[in-house]
Amino acid sequence: VSDLSERVLSGDVRAVARAISIVEDEAPDAAALVRDVFARTGHAYLVGVTGPPGAGKSTLVDRLTAEFRATSTVGILAVDPTSPFSGGAVLGDRLRMQSHAADTGVFIRSMATRGHLGGLARATADAALVLDASGKDIVIIETVGVGQAEVDIVRTADISIVMLVPGTGDDVQALKAGIMEIADVFVVNKADRDGADRLVSAIESNLSLQTFGPGDWRPPIVKTVATTGSGVPELLTAINAFRAHSTTKQAGRHRARSEARLREIVSERLMAKVDARALAAIVDRLSAREIDPYSAADAIVAAL
Amino acid sequence: VSDLSERVLSGDVRAVARAISIVEDEAPDAAALVRDVFARTGHAYLVGVTGPPGAGKSTLVDRLTAEFRATSTVGILAVDPTSPFSGGAVLGDRLRMQSHAADTGVFIRSMATRGHLGGLARATADAALVLDASGKDIVIIETVGVGQAEVDIVRTADISIVMLVPGTGDDVQALKAGIMEIADVFVVNKADRDGADRLVSAIESNLSLQTFGPGDWRPPIVKTVATTGSGVPELLTAINAFRAHSTTKQAGRHRARSEARLREIVSERLMAKVDARALAAIVDRLSAREIDPYSAADAIVAAL
Repeated sequence: VSDLSERVLSGDVRAVARAISIVEDEAPDAAALVRDVFARTGHAYLVGVTGPPGAGKSTLVDRLTAEFRATSTVGILAVDPTSPFSGGAVLGDRLRMQSHAADTGVFIRSMATRGHLGGLARATADAALVLDASGKDIVIIETVGVGQAEVDIVRTADISIVMLVPGTGDDVQALKAGIMEIADVFVVNKADRDGADRLVSAIESNLSLQTFGPGDWRPPIVKTVATTGSGVPELLTAINAFRAHSTTKQAGRHRARSEARLREIVSERLMAKVDARALAAIVDRLSAREIDPYSAADAIVAAL
Repeated sequence: VSDLSERVLSGDVRAVARAISIVEDEAPDAAALVRDVFARTGHAYLVGVTGPPGAGKSTLVDRLTAEFRATSTVGILAVDPTSPFSGGAVLGDRLRMQSHAADTGVFIRSMATRGHLGGLARATADAALVLDASGKDIVIIETVGVGQAEVDIVRTADISIVMLVPGTGDDVQALKAGIMEIADVFVVNKADRDGADRLVSAIESNLSLQTFGPGDWRPPIVKTVATTGSGVPELLTAINAFRAHSTTKQAGRHRARSEARLREIVSERLMAKVDARALAAIVDRLSAREIDPYSAADAIVAAL
């Protein structure tokens, strides 16, 4: 592992790919790997992009990557939390990978759920650390959907970009779904379609319900047409403005993120200590309704 | 609590509402309440209904409830995992509640995420226990979306009904998203729309990729128009067929469900033992990158 870590730190592409596989598989070496590289992380800026299926996330991330490349190297993690069973990645189309294939300044990787979702959020955070340690300046975490799972993943990032598209009905749903609270920047993509202005107004009127103090960041709304690249420079400007604005606030965000990750790892470590046979025996009693789940949990905790 | 439990067991509507609030809020009394009523549960049949926003879930559940009422009492839990921040319930429209308001054989309750999602899945399971204990024959758990969160919630149920609608593009997404694996019955709602037959074919061809042995249940596809009630009796027939088919298989499902819930409660109990000040101190070091998350977790586990 420590050889692999060295190669990750030197930016070796194959080592980075291998390291991400290790954290994705929750392989035994994952913890050692993160230990090795952790002190050399904290340089990359993490950009989260989320939105409903079909919002054009891949295309936008592609365009954004091209903009970033003028000054920065870029890692992209395309995460699909809606794919709990397949083990394959729905995002990360081959075509897209090819468009940056010749560019060593861009690393693209798809990630899907393998097992529990908490695992995916953690694996994504660890994969971002690997890309950070390998020297990427920007790490884009792209995830489909607007549910709690996506929120957890987007929270890994330094900035959360929420994409919406006009006329799908998804817009209203997303606004309802509490997505307002996580967005640092809104993108209305496919802005050449009917209903784009109505969607912008809907977001605006939602924002106007919130109270912003003098020093508070008010999420801007950027209209884009990702297929043509229209609006993408403005999006980059918005990202840089947020980055400049939030340097002090980011400390709190980093801290909350660190604590959440720590709690998850501790929880997994503790659960690993539960004796599998004792657990099976008590599940038998639970299935027979001889014991209730809370008393069963007390019994297991007491046995530890 | 034990007075409340008695009233729940006698079917007192206000006690049931109060008890569900207690489990939803993860109030200290929640465990005692479940303990009290657990031995008297296991009677209700749990029906999970999931599908994308706008699929017509509320309307279908309404129609289905009317069918069930011919022979059974019904509890409905409308769960919205996409609402992590509002604390309010997006589903559970007032109108709908009114349509069954005069019927004491129906209990309807909306539930939204309060805090972490694991909490919502657990609260939903506990609320279903409360409804079960109160004597409801059928408990319908309705949830929006097709992500892992919804999958976890639907897994609480004895049967999983997946709703899709033609022409939204959601269909393909849902099929991709691994929803095939959790569906016991497919419903194609708004079946009077263009594309309904194409959607049925898409599901069929997906099913044909799977191998079904002689005794295996092959998920049927039921076409409905929930607004008119068309297809709803056929859906009831499909549910009853699955119920009759799966009595032996259900044991395994129950067991897996029991174990998952138990693990979750144990994990929460163990985490509650972590000293908050020690955790805060180590998070400080983590934020300063003086220690990596895995070593930090080891230190906390060792201190327990």
